[in-house]
Amino acid sequence: MQQSDIIIKNGTILTMNRENTVIEDGLIHVKGDTISRVGSGGGVTIEAEKTIDAHGGLILPGLINGHTHAAMSLFRGLADDLPLMDWLNNYIFPAERRIDADFVFTGTLLACAEMIMSGTTTFCDMYLFEKEAARAARKAQMRCLVGEVLYDFPSPNYGSVEKGLEYTESLIKKWQNDPLVSVAVEPHSLFTCSPDLLISANEMALRYEVPMVIHVAETLNEVEEVKEKYGKPPVEYLYSLGLLDSHLIADHCVHVSEQDIKKMAKNGTRVIHNPESNMKLASGIAPVTELITRGVTVGLGTDGCASNNNLDIFTEMDMTAKLHKIQTMDPTVLDSVTVLRMATIEGAKALGMEDITGSLETGKKADIIILDVDKPHLTPMYNPYSHIVYAARGNDVSHSIINGQPVMEDRKLLTLDIEEIMERAREKAIKVREWVS
Amino acid sequence: MQQSDIIIKNGTILTMNRENTVIEDGLIHVKGDTISRVGSGGGVTIEAEKTIDAHGGLILPGLINGHTHAAMSLFRGLADDLPLMDWLNNYIFPAERRIDADFVFTGTLLACAEMIMSGTTTFCDMYLFEKEAARAARKAQMRCLVGEVLYDFPSPNYGSVEKGLEYTESLIKKWQNDPLVSVAVEPHSLFTCSPDLLISANEMALRYEVPMVIHVAETLNEVEEVKEKYGKPPVEYLYSLGLLDSHLIADHCVHVSEQDIKKMAKNGTRVIHNPESNMKLASGIAPVTELITRGVTVGLGTDGCASNNNLDIFTEMDMTAKLHKIQTMDPTVLDSVTVLRMATIEGAKALGMEDITGSLETGKKADIIILDVDKPHLTPMYNPYSHIVYAARGNDVSHSIINGQPVMEDRKLLTLDIEEIMERAREKAIKVREWVS
Repeated sequence: MQQSDIIIKNGTILTMNRENTVIEDGLIHVKGDTISRVGSGGGVTIEAEKTIDAHGGLILPGLINGHTHAAMSLFRGLADDLPLMDWLNNYIFPAERRIDADFVFTGTLLACAEMIMSGTTTFCDMYLFEKEAARAARKAQMRCLVGEVLYDFPSPNYGSVEKGLEYTESLIKKWQNDPLVSVAVEPHSLFTCSPDLLISANEMALRYEVPMVIHVAETLNEVEEVKEKYGKPPVEYLYSLGLLDSHLIADHCVHVSEQDIKKMAKNGTRVIHNPESNMKLASGIAPVTELITRGVTVGLGTDGCASNNNLDIFTEMDMTAKLHKIQTMDPTVLDSVTVLRMATIEGAKALGMEDITGSLETGKKADIIILDVDKPHLTPMYNPYSHIVYAARGNDVSHSIINGQPVMEDRKLLTLDIEEIMERAREKAIKVREWVS
Repeated sequence: MQQSDIIIKNGTILTMNRENTVIEDGLIHVKGDTISRVGSGGGVTIEAEKTIDAHGGLILPGLINGHTHAAMSLFRGLADDLPLMDWLNNYIFPAERRIDADFVFTGTLLACAEMIMSGTTTFCDMYLFEKEAARAARKAQMRCLVGEVLYDFPSPNYGSVEKGLEYTESLIKKWQNDPLVSVAVEPHSLFTCSPDLLISANEMALRYEVPMVIHVAETLNEVEEVKEKYGKPPVEYLYSLGLLDSHLIADHCVHVSEQDIKKMAKNGTRVIHNPESNMKLASGIAPVTELITRGVTVGLGTDGCASNNNLDIFTEMDMTAKLHKIQTMDPTVLDSVTVLRMATIEGAKALGMEDITGSLETGKKADIIILDVDKPHLTPMYNPYSHIVYAARGNDVSHSIINGQPVMEDRKLLTLDIEEIMERAREKAIKVREWVS
């Protein structure tokens, strides 16, 4: 692949660095996969092979979707507004038993198309046939942290649980030097994984120095089940197994106590907040303001399309800012700067990628999006942060660059043939309808 | 203006009639301002002067924004994430004291552009210089119910309160036979209007047989203030004044009791729910499931752009469906069909326009939008309702017809010059910055 040499100019840069530096009339120079300069564009005469004109738009770090089941894009709208157990037992589980490698490849390609087109450049995925998810992300040229879901019962992919750990190990080895794809060990949850599986998974994560990703305290049912089985609520139980550590990425954390939060903060556990999914499934509201106040790193995720039903981090930001205001009855919490940080640099920290992505700074990999603000709903602009969180939507993103490579220009995807992907998605849907009928 | 003769074909029609009839491969014929046929398109050979191909998209009634302060589009992002009183006293009120007719005209044009481009065809407005709002809506060819805000203190538009009633009366007379613009009497709230003003406003509404629009029980502070001044909470106080009637449109109703809800249901009072604004200002969560269960008609609104910060009814639908699931901890409440009804036919009922708009039925005025679903985030499609509420966004709307006249085709506005409007909006913003600095 040709080495990039790109200038992005004529826009306001939101760096999302430590000081939230904003640079009006900014200019970014990308060389190869890296940001080689971030600064003012006034009077600068740098030349490059390619110039992208932001036309007065906002230039910001690519967004980070910290929790997805990407291939579930093929289940979007299959079943909604149902009691959780009905939804799972009569729709999602029966369908998931039938999926195969090609299903996951197609579904993840579809999800990547949606994510790029709504400004996401990095995602963290947990699903079945995850080699296919990695392959799809690589084709889309998206940055990702992926992992095969592990649980006690047989998987339609790898079969018995021992094979799941072997599959994960081969996944880690296959991608260990890849510039875009990295791999995590991903036991599903405390109520679907035995203590032995959790401990084995953790050992593997430590051995290969990769994160461990797990659902934690998503629903009250889960909390009750874990308490009943193991005599402790989820976070205490994780702690007692020695798993509450700085390599742990805990998805959801809806039902956690003040004591839990203190423990997570002390141990460096990172949290991904999924407000839309938690609301749609009526799981509860995670105590995000307390998590952040106590020093826990919190990123944002959409969860899978079947429980959201979109992969748009812009609407997730809007929901986050508003949900916690109403939860705390305080309009000042989770202001727009804090929330955009959750979707960028804090999300990068949550995935252990803060040295690579999440902000626009010299030396970081070039994961950059441009937001077109020349639209009625974004005119006039007093405050770019509040525009992004409260008014913009995914389809206001005009350009995306990942790891120095343009993947979308003027809303045209450069790495994926969306007509072909949508056609294949429609074919898969015919089968899905049969599976659940 | 030329009489319309338009066929819309090759899409799935969601009629939103009483039975929620869905017609695949549907065909709608519009003659003049009216829907002359809604039915299957299979084998039909009707000819018309103009044919709009929906290209497999969804054809549905135009959305109804039941509560706006449209010209506040010029304040979007001026101040966010602040305590309510700081926001009002240091930003909104000082700015509003300086606005003039041209400000409201420009701001309302900008809002109309955003609303049309996100699928809204009818809105209910309350603001200052409302003659200009009506003029702007007319220029945009949007359907609306507008009214000058009335309160005890002097208005930058009409001066003393008596003049406000005169202004309202002249507004009613000016537009009384207009096909698009209708007028309501709009006292601001129970804590900014004396009982005399409320009673006079009500008499005028009854005399001209127009609705009365008012903010009710939006915040806990308001409830306390009304109780202190008048010895009763807002809805009881309204009732005691004889105002709780079927011509009353009550915006918000966040803090209402079971008794209040019963009274509203019995008296036919209609409610507009504004979830995003109520969340962003941390006002509270309206008991929408109870209101609907008790038989109160509930429509959706965005409120003004300064407290939302968008006019997109699609995100309002998404928020409504999710917010009440988490409030009640029940994922089955406010399902996608119910929520789309709130944004269409129930919204029309709330504004007293159910004979005119809100559903696609023969004889109704032709207020129709087309949603382009040939996109990754809307493919495949199992359920059009859940796609609309949970996955689509305003900018997925490709076409809009209001009162039989196309106002947007392939996302190009036909009635407004948006470049010119945005330029004027940017000029106004320079002044606004000075006002609050």
